[in-house]
Amino acid sequence: MIRLFKSFKEYKDTGFSTIPEGQPDRLINQDGSLNVKRTGLGFFAHFSVFRELIEMGWWKFNLIVVASYLFINVFFALIYLWIGVEGLNVQNTNNETNDFLNAFYFSAQTFSTVGYGRENPLNHSANLVAVFEMLIGMMYLALAAGLLYGRFSRPVSKIIFSKNILVSPYREGKGLMFRFSNAKSNLLIEVEVQVLMAMNVIDNGNNLRKFYQLDLERKKINMLAMTWTVVHPIDGKSPLVNLSEADLLESEPEFLVFVNAINDTNSQLIHARTSYKSNEIVWNAKFDSIYKTRRKKTVVHIDKIDKFTRL
Amino acid sequence: MIRLFKSFKEYKDTGFSTIPEGQPDRLINQDGSLNVKRTGLGFFAHFSVFRELIEMGWWKFNLIVVASYLFINVFFALIYLWIGVEGLNVQNTNNETNDFLNAFYFSAQTFSTVGYGRENPLNHSANLVAVFEMLIGMMYLALAAGLLYGRFSRPVSKIIFSKNILVSPYREGKGLMFRFSNAKSNLLIEVEVQVLMAMNVIDNGNNLRKFYQLDLERKKINMLAMTWTVVHPIDGKSPLVNLSEADLLESEPEFLVFVNAINDTNSQLIHARTSYKSNEIVWNAKFDSIYKTRRKKTVVHIDKIDKFTRL
Amino acid sequence: MIRLFKSFKEYKDTGFSTIPEGQPDRLINQDGSLNVKRTGLGFFAHFSVFRELIEMGWWKFNLIVVASYLFINVFFALIYLWIGVEGLNVQNTNNETNDFLNAFYFSAQTFSTVGYGRENPLNHSANLVAVFEMLIGMMYLALAAGLLYGRFSRPVSKIIFSKNILVSPYREGKGLMFRFSNAKSNLLIEVEVQVLMAMNVIDNGNNLRKFYQLDLERKKINMLAMTWTVVHPIDGKSPLVNLSEADLLESEPEFLVFVNAINDTNSQLIHARTSYKSNEIVWNAKFDSIYKTRRKKTVVHIDKIDKFTRL
Amino acid sequence: MIRLFKSFKEYKDTGFSTIPEGQPDRLINQDGSLNVKRTGLGFFAHFSVFRELIEMGWWKFNLIVVASYLFINVFFALIYLWIGVEGLNVQNTNNETNDFLNAFYFSAQTFSTVGYGRENPLNHSANLVAVFEMLIGMMYLALAAGLLYGRFSRPVSKIIFSKNILVSPYREGKGLMFRFSNAKSNLLIEVEVQVLMAMNVIDNGNNLRKFYQLDLERKKINMLAMTWTVVHPIDGKSPLVNLSEADLLESEPEFLVFVNAINDTNSQLIHARTSYKSNEIVWNAKFDSIYKTRRKKTVVHIDKIDKFTRL
Repeated sequence: MIRLFKSFKEYKDTGFSTIPEGQPDRLINQDGSLNVKRTGLGFFAHFSVFRELIEMGWWKFNLIVVASYLFINVFFALIYLWIGVEGLNVQNTNNETNDFLNAFYFSAQTFSTVGYGRENPLNHSANLVAVFEMLIGMMYLALAAGLLYGRFSRPVSKIIFSKNILVSPYREGKGLMFRFSNAKSNLLIEVEVQVLMAMNVIDNGNNLRKFYQLDLERKKINMLAMTWTVVHPIDGKSPLVNLSEADLLESEPEFLVFVNAINDTNSQLIHARTSYKSNEIVWNAKFDSIYKTRRKKTVVHIDKIDKFTRL
Repeated sequence: MIRLFKSFKEYKDTGFSTIPEGQPDRLINQDGSLNVKRTGLGFFAHFSVFRELIEMGWWKFNLIVVASYLFINVFFALIYLWIGVEGLNVQNTNNETNDFLNAFYFSAQTFSTVGYGRENPLNHSANLVAVFEMLIGMMYLALAAGLLYGRFSRPVSKIIFSKNILVSPYREGKGLMFRFSNAKSNLLIEVEVQVLMAMNVIDNGNNLRKFYQLDLERKKINMLAMTWTVVHPIDGKSPLVNLSEADLLESEPEFLVFVNAINDTNSQLIHARTSYKSNEIVWNAKFDSIYKTRRKKTVVHIDKIDKFTRL
Repeated sequence: MIRLFKSFKEYKDTGFSTIPEGQPDRLINQDGSLNVKRTGLGFFAHFSVFRELIEMGWWKFNLIVVASYLFINVFFALIYLWIGVEGLNVQNTNNETNDFLNAFYFSAQTFSTVGYGRENPLNHSANLVAVFEMLIGMMYLALAAGLLYGRFSRPVSKIIFSKNILVSPYREGKGLMFRFSNAKSNLLIEVEVQVLMAMNVIDNGNNLRKFYQLDLERKKINMLAMTWTVVHPIDGKSPLVNLSEADLLESEPEFLVFVNAINDTNSQLIHARTSYKSNEIVWNAKFDSIYKTRRKKTVVHIDKIDKFTRL
Repeated sequence: MIRLFKSFKEYKDTGFSTIPEGQPDRLINQDGSLNVKRTGLGFFAHFSVFRELIEMGWWKFNLIVVASYLFINVFFALIYLWIGVEGLNVQNTNNETNDFLNAFYFSAQTFSTVGYGRENPLNHSANLVAVFEMLIGMMYLALAAGLLYGRFSRPVSKIIFSKNILVSPYREGKGLMFRFSNAKSNLLIEVEVQVLMAMNVIDNGNNLRKFYQLDLERKKINMLAMTWTVVHPIDGKSPLVNLSEADLLESEPEFLVFVNAINDTNSQLIHARTSYKSNEIVWNAKFDSIYKTRRKKTVVHIDKIDKFTRL
């Protein structure tokens, strides 16, 4: 266990409390979500139906659209069946499947507001149910319009981080390095990064987990045109300066990475997070170059962002 | 009544004027709304129909949708009835209820653009009314689409504050403390807090109500991962430093709390406010912990945010 | 004409050039629009159809909806009439008005997608025109949904400024004062104001129009809870310090006011501007109070914002 | 080749790496897009269908709407034809064109939810296909609503830059100047500009391409009321101070221009970029004035923004 770095200022504004009683697992998962569970919220506070429908993949979304359409129509078909298909201007065939299908067709024609009219409600019960189903159909369409707009207009940027954080040669000494890029084709501008380190230290005999902010070679760039290799120089100002690989691992470090940027297309703010734990640190390695110049144009191989070479 | 704190800088940028002539009630209600009435605005400036429809609960919204749908169709049904149901290709049954219902069904079929066609307008009057109702129906659907999108896409964060503000032990002395959390499951980042205190003071014999900004242990955190206990240290820099509980209550204090944050999901800015009055101050108490570590994961019991223990 | 104030720093970042050759009229109109004409833009750059449709009053908008609906249907009715109403399954009555109306009804039933079906396209020409009209109808509905959402979701704040700017008693001396409020019921937070003065000065014998930034008693407030009386103290730091009313008028001053704020409801940024010219300056007057305390609640009479009393 | 400017601080935060191995072409194209190719992204990351549909011209968009409408209906018409038009309540004419057209009309009536009903599905196959087509039609309408709203509500500002960057007389010396304006009629406020210069320099015998930030006479203006002529004074603080035209061209400079602003209408942030290469630099020339005062109103001729006069 490492002694408290008296000379390095603790960073206290993470929003995570100092947790004295034991080593929790990582605070931030590598996909950026928090490793925290919140209980006592109401049932609906745990998830947002809208957010789910906006963010799920297209296959799942389309499946839900088709399934809900079929479900609603089967539901109304059963009601019409119960009322009696004679009320829909259809002959009762005494064949349950046929009658159900006729009721189902009528329901779909009502729900979608097609209303061919060969099947149409004759008695009051069928008419009143149909009046109600029409409204459901209108609201369904209205909802679909909102959801499709929501899906299309949400921010499309997706920041991908290298899987590992490296201790690489840097200038005369060493540097802690990771890199990231934008997996989408839009341009990110005014990109800022902040790196915090959580580690176990001994302070007056107490085993505590504390946070430190790491100085970076560069905190902000104008544009994320290619990839950005973020460097923390391991020099006199770094809490890592005198630690060996074994020392570092013993302190069970977690490197928390926060990225802010602006999506140039629609000026939306982008926030991304990740974290690196002990098993993601690689000592004495160097990221492979992923740039090439082809016909006077720079080409970036984003799929090779994880690639590094041990020295 | 307390003498003017000559040594503490008055805070003048609240937007509330210094009010010399008497103690008003609280300036901010505990739900964050202002305790101010504005008159002289036009009728429509007092409320926004859209905002109401966006922010009301789902039960109320659905009720309004159904009620307006029924109302519009009853309205048009009465017009068709007045024109005569023969104009709708329906036999006049000389039964008022029957005729009204037939007119009502036709209206709904027109409004929703289902148009089965068994009932259809035969004469010019019925046709012209139907042409107009179709347009109303289209606009109703268009409006519903906008409202549903508006309802779903509005910010979902909801900050909940502890009901009380405590005077608790803090380091060697005391601190004024309250805490807050996010009642929704989304993540809030770059969370900032500002605390103002309004109190009655005597300045040159005048009884005035003045504002002071309270220094905080921490003004900003990276993430509201769990809850945030905001602490104002009652030390030499605090206007509360030499006040007893009785002194404080006599000055009829109001603590105004302002929180700004960013919703990580959609980058929307979040603003929340609350205030604590005399009866919400608890002297010499401590908030109960609401964190537990379960299977190396931190669990936060947000429903216990109000819980404290008197010392 | 006034000599150049050597001791006051000219403000050069207005975006208006220093204009040496003559006195233009006001730069900003009192409603906040610029008094500048731009030519050479393409025809469509001069206005935005969408913005117009979003910002016009409801009466005008509804009129355009109804008019366009009628226009499109008359247009298609004429096409169907030209094709022949027999193609719509309607008997040709040899009565032009009747035939036109039947074609018009069919058009509306197609456009709105009601499609009762008594009238329906029989031949290829009528069918093909109807296929096209259905698409127009769908797009019309889609457009209406977007427009209605746009109308409802646009920022609703409206800042109203006092009609006059006053030279009032302030502390031991005088101050230049105007006030403003929010004419809507939403809350504005983080309200900032900037005041620039344009005036004619003589610099080395040249008659120039220059800008100065005026210091304010307060530049920012937390909330626009009531109204804000903005004060520029006319003291040693003010370019107005030694000017009489006649001096000031001779320099043909224009006071440019810029307000920024955040709409608390939806976090949208609000920008407002106004300007005061010579005839809107009132020397030696004081704004009337518009606050009252009623049942421990502050009441603000926003309709009296222009009221002042000459001293 | 120019020696490294030891006295001028290199600007390292562009997001473009220092590229030692040869002169790439321009980094930013004159339309603001990056001259960088990214590979290794998934197929769909390369483009956003939604962004394309939002940003394309109206002719192209309308063409796509009509084409997709026809395509979908032809597709379903072929299915109905395969099932047999008798299933649509239409007589089989044994004329392929006629049958196809009847199936096509039915498809359009179903897709648009008009549903006149003369043609209507009789058997199960036709009914089931129709049930599915109705849903497609509803989704098509919902999608169109979202796309039209997206098209109308996207930022309308378009910043146009002068085609050339000039070396003009400025005060006692020279200045590097370009100008820009807003090609739309909305107002831009809080307009900021940053200019970087990329050039080849020799550093310890190495041929490197480095970036420098150029000081500007003015970095920010309140409003882009007219046009803004951005000036970099070529004085002692400028890396260009002792360069002749030949020196400058030999270093293959690229001037990168970044503009940020706020659209006053909807508070959206606007970002624009351009770059000037050797062939766009004009030595010893002056921009022509594009302002006139007509009836005390300033008139700006934006179409003349590129016009300059060689001295």
